[in-house]
Amino acid sequence: MFVHTVFFWLKHPENQADRDALRAGLESLKGINDITTAYIGVPADTRRPVIDHSYDFSLTFVFGDKDAHDRYQIHPVHLEFVSECSHLWERVQVYDAVS
Amino acid sequence: MFVHTVFFWLKHPENQADRDALRAGLESLKGINDITTAYIGVPADTRRPVIDHSYDFSLTFVFGDKDAHDRYQIHPVHLEFVSECSHLWERVQVYDAVS
Repeated sequence: MFVHTVFFWLKHPENQADRDALRAGLESLKGINDITTAYIGVPADTRRPVIDHSYDFSLTFVFGDKDAHDRYQIHPVHLEFVSECSHLWERVQVYDAVS
Repeated sequence: MFVHTVFFWLKHPENQADRDALRAGLESLKGINDITTAYIGVPADTRRPVIDHSYDFSLTFVFGDKDAHDRYQIHPVHLEFVSECSHLWERVQVYDAVS
Protein backbone atom coordinates (compact mmCIF):
# COMPACT_ATOMS: atom_id res chain seq x y z
CA MET A 1 0.00 0.00 0.00
CA PHE A 2 1.03 3.61 -0.54
CA VAL A 3 -0.36 6.22 1.89
CA HIS A 4 -0.19 9.84 0.68
CA THR A 5 -0.88 12.34 3.47
CA VAL A 6 -1.05 16.09 2.91
CA PHE A 7 -1.72 18.96 5.32
CA PHE A 8 -2.82 22.35 4.02
CA TRP A 9 -2.46 25.74 5.70
CA LEU A 10 -4.66 28.40 4.10
CA LYS A 11 -3.37 31.90 3.38
CA HIS A 12 -6.63 33.27 4.79
CA PRO A 13 -8.10 30.65 7.14
CA GLU A 14 -10.67 33.17 8.34
CA ASN A 15 -12.10 33.48 4.81
CA GLN A 16 -15.07 31.11 4.50
CA ALA A 17 -15.11 31.36 0.69
CA ASP A 18 -11.48 30.22 0.60
CA ARG A 19 -12.25 27.33 2.95
CA ASP A 20 -15.23 26.29 0.85
CA ALA A 21 -13.18 26.50 -2.35
CA LEU A 22 -10.36 24.36 -0.99
CA ARG A 23 -12.76 21.81 0.44
CA ALA A 24 -14.59 21.58 -2.89
CA GLY A 25 -11.27 21.11 -4.68
CA LEU A 26 -10.22 18.38 -2.26
CA GLU A 27 -13.57 16.63 -2.63
CA SER A 28 -13.16 16.69 -6.43
CA LEU A 29 -10.01 14.57 -6.06
CA LYS A 30 -12.00 11.68 -4.60
CA GLY A 31 -13.31 10.95 -8.09
CA ILE A 32 -9.88 9.86 -9.29
CA ASN A 33 -10.06 6.13 -9.95
CA ASP A 34 -6.61 5.16 -8.74
CA ILE A 35 -7.42 6.18 -5.15
CA THR A 36 -8.36 3.11 -3.11
CA THR A 37 -9.53 4.98 -0.01
CA ALA A 38 -9.86 8.74 0.55
CA TYR A 39 -10.15 10.73 3.77
CA ILE A 40 -10.45 14.52 3.86
CA GLY A 41 -10.49 16.13 7.27
CA VAL A 42 -10.01 19.08 9.55
CA PRO A 43 -8.14 19.13 12.88
CA ALA A 44 -9.71 17.11 15.66
CA ASP A 45 -10.06 18.76 19.05
CA THR A 46 -7.34 16.57 20.58
CA ARG A 47 -4.63 18.63 22.28
CA ARG A 48 -1.26 17.25 23.37
CA PRO A 49 2.23 18.73 22.89
CA VAL A 50 3.01 16.14 20.17
CA ILE A 51 -0.10 17.02 18.13
CA ASP A 52 0.07 19.58 15.34
CA HIS A 53 -3.46 20.96 14.98
CA SER A 54 -2.44 24.19 13.23
CA TYR A 55 -3.37 23.03 9.70
CA ASP A 56 -6.69 23.80 8.01
CA PHE A 57 -7.36 20.66 5.94
CA SER A 58 -5.86 17.21 5.67
CA LEU A 59 -5.98 14.63 2.95
CA THR A 60 -5.11 10.95 3.34
CA PHE A 61 -5.27 8.99 0.10
CA VAL A 62 -4.44 5.29 0.00
CA PHE A 63 -3.21 3.73 -3.25
CA GLY A 64 -2.57 0.11 -4.11
CA ASP A 65 1.03 0.90 -5.00
CA LYS A 66 3.38 3.71 -6.00
CA ASP A 67 2.40 3.41 -9.66
CA ALA A 68 -1.19 4.24 -8.78
CA HIS A 69 0.02 7.25 -6.77
CA ASP A 70 2.21 8.38 -9.66
CA ARG A 71 -0.75 8.22 -12.05
CA TYR A 72 -2.79 10.29 -9.57
CA GLN A 73 -0.13 13.00 -9.50
CA ILE A 74 -0.51 13.59 -13.24
CA HIS A 75 -4.26 12.93 -13.48
CA PRO A 76 -6.06 15.88 -15.13
CA VAL A 77 -8.41 16.29 -12.14
CA HIS A 78 -5.41 16.56 -9.81
CA LEU A 79 -3.61 19.00 -12.09
CA GLU A 80 -6.78 21.11 -12.30
CA PHE A 81 -7.05 21.09 -8.50
CA VAL A 82 -3.48 22.38 -8.15
CA SER A 83 -4.07 24.99 -10.83
CA GLU A 84 -7.36 26.20 -9.33
CA CYS A 85 -6.57 25.97 -5.61
CA SER A 86 -2.83 26.45 -5.03
CA HIS A 87 -3.28 30.21 -4.64
CA LEU A 88 -5.43 29.47 -1.56
CA TRP A 89 -2.74 27.82 0.54
CA GLU A 90 0.30 29.23 2.25
CA ARG A 91 1.93 25.89 2.90
CA VAL A 92 1.50 22.19 2.23
CA GLN A 93 3.29 19.39 4.04
CA VAL A 94 3.38 15.98 2.41
CA TYR A 95 4.29 12.57 3.86
CA ASP A 96 4.37 9.50 1.59
CA ALA A 97 4.60 6.08 3.18
CA VAL A 98 4.80 2.55 1.83
CA SER A 99 3.99 -0.67 3.64
CA MET B 1 -14.27 9.20 10.68
CA PHE B 2 -11.24 10.01 12.80
CA VAL B 3 -7.78 9.65 11.20
CA HIS B 4 -4.86 9.43 13.63
CA THR B 5 -1.49 9.84 11.90
CA VAL B 6 1.84 9.54 13.70
CA PHE B 7 5.41 9.85 12.44
CA PHE B 8 8.30 8.41 14.44
CA TRP B 9 11.95 9.41 14.35
CA LEU B 10 14.22 6.82 15.98
CA LYS B 11 17.05 7.81 18.31
CA HIS B 12 19.27 5.31 16.50
CA PRO B 13 17.85 4.76 13.01
CA GLU B 14 20.98 2.85 12.04
CA ASN B 15 20.31 0.23 14.72
CA GLN B 16 18.43 -2.68 13.14
CA ALA B 17 17.39 -4.11 16.52
CA ASP B 18 15.75 -0.78 17.40
CA ARG B 19 13.97 -0.68 14.02
CA ASP B 20 12.74 -4.25 14.48
CA ALA B 21 11.56 -3.52 18.02
CA LEU B 22 9.62 -0.42 16.99
CA ARG B 23 8.07 -2.18 14.02
CA ALA B 24 7.01 -5.10 16.20
CA GLY B 25 5.49 -2.67 18.69
CA LEU B 26 3.60 -0.86 15.94
CA GLU B 27 2.34 -4.13 14.50
CA SER B 28 1.05 -5.15 17.95
CA LEU B 29 -1.27 -2.11 17.91
CA LYS B 30 -3.16 -3.48 14.92
CA GLY B 31 -4.81 -5.99 17.24
CA ILE B 32 -6.75 -3.25 19.03
CA ASN B 33 -10.40 -3.73 18.18
CA ASP B 34 -11.43 -0.08 17.92
CA ILE B 35 -9.14 0.50 14.91
CA THR B 36 -11.18 0.32 11.70
CA THR B 37 -8.21 0.40 9.30
CA ALA B 38 -4.48 0.37 10.08
CA TYR B 39 -1.50 1.31 7.93
CA ILE B 40 2.08 1.12 9.14
CA GLY B 41 4.74 2.37 6.77
CA VAL B 42 8.18 3.70 6.02
CA PRO B 43 9.08 6.66 3.79
CA ALA B 44 8.34 6.18 0.10
CA ASP B 45 11.08 7.12 -2.36
CA THR B 46 9.15 10.19 -3.55
CA ARG B 47 11.22 13.36 -3.37
CA ARG B 48 9.82 16.90 -3.68
CA PRO B 49 10.52 19.97 -1.54
CA VAL B 50 7.08 19.67 0.13
CA ILE B 51 7.67 16.04 1.17
CA ASP B 52 9.10 15.21 4.58
CA HIS B 53 10.78 11.81 4.21
CA SER B 54 13.03 12.17 7.26
CA TYR B 55 10.93 10.00 9.59
CA ASP B 56 11.57 6.30 10.20
CA PHE B 57 8.04 4.87 10.64
CA SER B 58 4.52 6.11 10.11
CA LEU B 59 1.22 4.94 11.49
CA THR B 60 -2.19 5.84 10.08
CA PHE B 61 -5.08 4.47 12.11
CA VAL B 62 -8.68 5.15 11.12
CA PHE B 63 -11.41 5.07 13.77
CA GLY B 64 -15.17 5.30 13.42
CA ASP B 65 -15.25 8.33 15.69
CA LYS B 66 -13.32 10.20 18.37
CA ASP B 67 -14.70 7.94 21.12
CA ALA B 68 -13.10 4.93 19.44
CA HIS B 69 -9.79 6.85 19.20
CA ASP B 70 -10.03 7.84 22.87
CA ARG B 71 -10.56 4.20 23.89
CA TYR B 72 -7.49 3.24 21.79
CA GLN B 73 -5.33 5.78 23.63
CA ILE B 74 -6.00 4.09 26.98
CA HIS B 75 -6.14 0.49 25.68
CA PRO B 76 -3.68 -1.76 27.59
CA VAL B 77 -1.96 -2.83 24.35
CA HIS B 78 -1.35 0.82 23.42
CA LEU B 79 -0.12 1.70 26.91
CA GLU B 80 2.24 -1.31 26.80
CA PHE B 81 3.54 -0.16 23.41
CA VAL B 82 4.34 3.31 24.78
CA SER B 83 5.94 1.82 27.87
CA GLU B 84 8.05 -0.68 25.90
CA CYS B 85 8.97 1.43 22.86
CA SER B 86 9.06 5.12 23.79
CA HIS B 87 12.76 4.90 24.69
CA LEU B 88 13.42 4.03 21.02
CA TRP B 89 12.20 7.29 19.51
CA GLU B 90 13.64 10.76 19.58
CA ARG B 91 10.51 12.47 18.31
CA VAL B 92 6.90 11.76 17.39
CA GLN B 93 4.65 14.06 15.40
CA VAL B 94 0.90 13.48 15.58
CA TYR B 95 -1.90 14.79 13.40
CA ASP B 96 -5.53 14.00 14.26
CA ALA B 97 -8.22 14.74 11.68
CA VAL B 98 -11.99 14.37 11.62
CA SER B 99 -14.22 14.25 8.60
